[in-house]
Amino acid sequence: MRKMRRKGLASMAVQTAASTTDSTTVDLGSAAALSCRECGHRVPLGPVFACEECFGPLEIAYDFSAYEPEDLRKRIEAGPANIWRYAPLLPVPADVADKPNINPGWTKLVKADNLARELGVTGGLYVKDDSGNPTHSFKDRVVAQALEAARVFGFTTLSCSSTGNLAGAVGAAAARAGFRSCVFIPHDLEQGKVVMAAIYGGELVGIEGNYDDVNRFCSELIGDPAGEGWGFVNVNLRPYYAEGSKTLAYEICEQLGWKLPDQLVIPIASGSQLTKIDKGLQELIKIGLVEDKPYKIFGAQAEGCSPVSVAYKAGHDVVRPQKPNTIAKSLAIGNPADGPYVLDIARRTGGAVEDVNDEQVVDAIKLLARTEGIFAETAGGVTVGVTKKLLENGVLDPSLTTVVLNTGDGLKTLDAVAGTGLTATIRPNLESFREAGLA
Amino acid sequence: MRKMRRKGLASMAVQTAASTTDSTTVDLGSAAALSCRECGHRVPLGPVFACEECFGPLEIAYDFSAYEPEDLRKRIEAGPANIWRYAPLLPVPADVADKPNINPGWTKLVKADNLARELGVTGGLYVKDDSGNPTHSFKDRVVAQALEAARVFGFTTLSCSSTGNLAGAVGAAAARAGFRSCVFIPHDLEQGKVVMAAIYGGELVGIEGNYDDVNRFCSELIGDPAGEGWGFVNVNLRPYYAEGSKTLAYEICEQLGWKLPDQLVIPIASGSQLTKIDKGLQELIKIGLVEDKPYKIFGAQAEGCSPVSVAYKAGHDVVRPQKPNTIAKSLAIGNPADGPYVLDIARRTGGAVEDVNDEQVVDAIKLLARTEGIFAETAGGVTVGVTKKLLENGVLDPSLTTVVLNTGDGLKTLDAVAGTGLTATIRPNLESFREAGLA
Repeated sequence: MRKMRRKGLASMAVQTAASTTDSTTVDLGSAAALSCRECGHRVPLGPVFACEECFGPLEIAYDFSAYEPEDLRKRIEAGPANIWRYAPLLPVPADVADKPNINPGWTKLVKADNLARELGVTGGLYVKDDSGNPTHSFKDRVVAQALEAARVFGFTTLSCSSTGNLAGAVGAAAARAGFRSCVFIPHDLEQGKVVMAAIYGGELVGIEGNYDDVNRFCSELIGDPAGEGWGFVNVNLRPYYAEGSKTLAYEICEQLGWKLPDQLVIPIASGSQLTKIDKGLQELIKIGLVEDKPYKIFGAQAEGCSPVSVAYKAGHDVVRPQKPNTIAKSLAIGNPADGPYVLDIARRTGGAVEDVNDEQVVDAIKLLARTEGIFAETAGGVTVGVTKKLLENGVLDPSLTTVVLNTGDGLKTLDAVAGTGLTATIRPNLESFREAGLA
Repeated sequence: MRKMRRKGLASMAVQTAASTTDSTTVDLGSAAALSCRECGHRVPLGPVFACEECFGPLEIAYDFSAYEPEDLRKRIEAGPANIWRYAPLLPVPADVADKPNINPGWTKLVKADNLARELGVTGGLYVKDDSGNPTHSFKDRVVAQALEAARVFGFTTLSCSSTGNLAGAVGAAAARAGFRSCVFIPHDLEQGKVVMAAIYGGELVGIEGNYDDVNRFCSELIGDPAGEGWGFVNVNLRPYYAEGSKTLAYEICEQLGWKLPDQLVIPIASGSQLTKIDKGLQELIKIGLVEDKPYKIFGAQAEGCSPVSVAYKAGHDVVRPQKPNTIAKSLAIGNPADGPYVLDIARRTGGAVEDVNDEQVVDAIKLLARTEGIFAETAGGVTVGVTKKLLENGVLDPSLTTVVLNTGDGLKTLDAVAGTGLTATIRPNLESFREAGLA
């Protein structure tokens, strides 16, 4: 079934590529080609996403051979306070920082000493807080990347299917860059989420059906002439889009003083973010920007959508799809495309994959907020909750430097913590204040 | 009436000061004393906010005489990517950046070329986007400042009255810094706002009454032994708190390449932010960090709470209080304490004060979102709307460099734009897509 789906995508991909920019005119910096993750087959850079040989996923291959680590480090440090400081390591033109883009990244790496004390971590605990991005989720990183590819490939419409964070990120990025945007969502999405996506003024199209229907329709559109000139950020632009997650790895290491952390706890939706963070860390090692040493990658899922965690614990190499049922909706991908790669990375680095239930997610959101003043969305509750569980189970080593990702903002998932409220109600006088034990 | 209110505050202020840290032990960097804005009377640094001579507001007086501009500029540029890069110009200890704080500031100054085109601005239009702060409003700047003063004065509880942004900023800052927090709000506040404030785990006390009752109660508490050890960020810590707004002036100039803008459009709630931005600009000129040249300051209000705008247009020096009725709730202060100073600054610099109605606020929120991908809260709609109106009226000069402030995040005022929705609803097939005219 997996192969069949891939075959369909590959034939569409080839069709789309034929009608666009010739790869010889493509300037995407040090990006040299697209390379199949499965069979290594290389094709020129273009808006394709599946291997014509084996239908495996394509990813960017770079030529970093010209970089001297000390020079590159200085160049990066002199760069802008956003992801474009890493332009030499990304599939973007050298002048990318001068183009209109919402410029995400360079978010805070918060030393979480209060949380460390509560959890018993002694080796240094950090929260990489991506709620500081322009639309307050890590999606701004990947969309910014897809947008630059869309520009190079001559696309004029930026599109995606989404049920949340991605819709806002695409709408905002397209608005600023002067692209038309057309975002497809299930027609019965909650009003708050609709507003967050609609405010940027692009087309926001409700599809009469569920999220699967939306995705099916988008695939149909990519294969149709009506979709010509359309860049679907996470479909025909996916190889570029996905690279945006590498910037999380770069920033974490630079913010640690160009050092690898010992342990990272990363959420799993499609699994792409986790695999690209690993790719980013490996690149830094190979180029010589950080000293080579072991690091462990831990994947975090919600129990209500835990296909990778279940596979990990069962010792499987493949991931059996699940029907999601969790408050962590931004992670609720029941059939994660990069699941097998995540399993491989967790095992190869000596990490693990773990899950927590919705109650633990809510407790973890509150724990992070009351210890560090960071209000995370449910995905952040998942990573903090899994960190706590892995420490309790002795899987995470409390004496090592550990980085936990928060990929989104609590303001976007208020419903999950709607039970949080007043600690007291009093009359407006000191007597009532004292009676309530507040003095 | 104004005098009477001040007298009450002053006597409380003196009482509070007597019971706290001796000023000789206070290390607040280059802050030298508190100085009365009305009569110039100076008192030692302490948690006092009103002049014992004339009941005028106290503000920080500095000793910047040791600073050599080129050295200071280098020191600032080598500093952290937050407000503490300006520690030499703020009432904070030199090691402030090493203490646990949510580290706001260094938010984006977005060159808004699309918006400029729509509005006909040719001289360069910028949006200073403070939605990038940790709790997504400029309040993080002032609270961070108040917190450091609270630390120095030995307070253990951080408090405020609030109906929105301030509650979250205080809760988050206190959580991270290890302070107890106790925030007072009207008991019937909307559930979403309650969650945003309660999530940080401090005391969140609902007062049976309206916002005036909440404020009255807080004043009572400050004068009572029960309030000992309590730092109310915008009352007994107000002189320190208010200085946080200067960092907006510093950042704007540094981000413009150490240049003054020609025109600034700033929202008015209490008016404190506008007056402190002016103070910050004047400091940069005096120290020699920017070249001295004229700049104009424009104040922006919502029509439903426009006491300063009304006074400006009538040519008055005093501000007649209003009962607020506007969707721009974060600006809805009917009796703004700094109103007279705002009038003075607008007139002295050749600026103006203007207001827009709620419909114009909503239109301006949408305009900014669709041109620049920035989703502003209602206060940002007020400044953008006023900018548009002042350009149309020929009051703002389109050929000059103009900076417009967005002080908060649209995610916090979703209700104001709740009407924004789907642009189309279709069935999940290409035929329906074409019928809707989306191809």
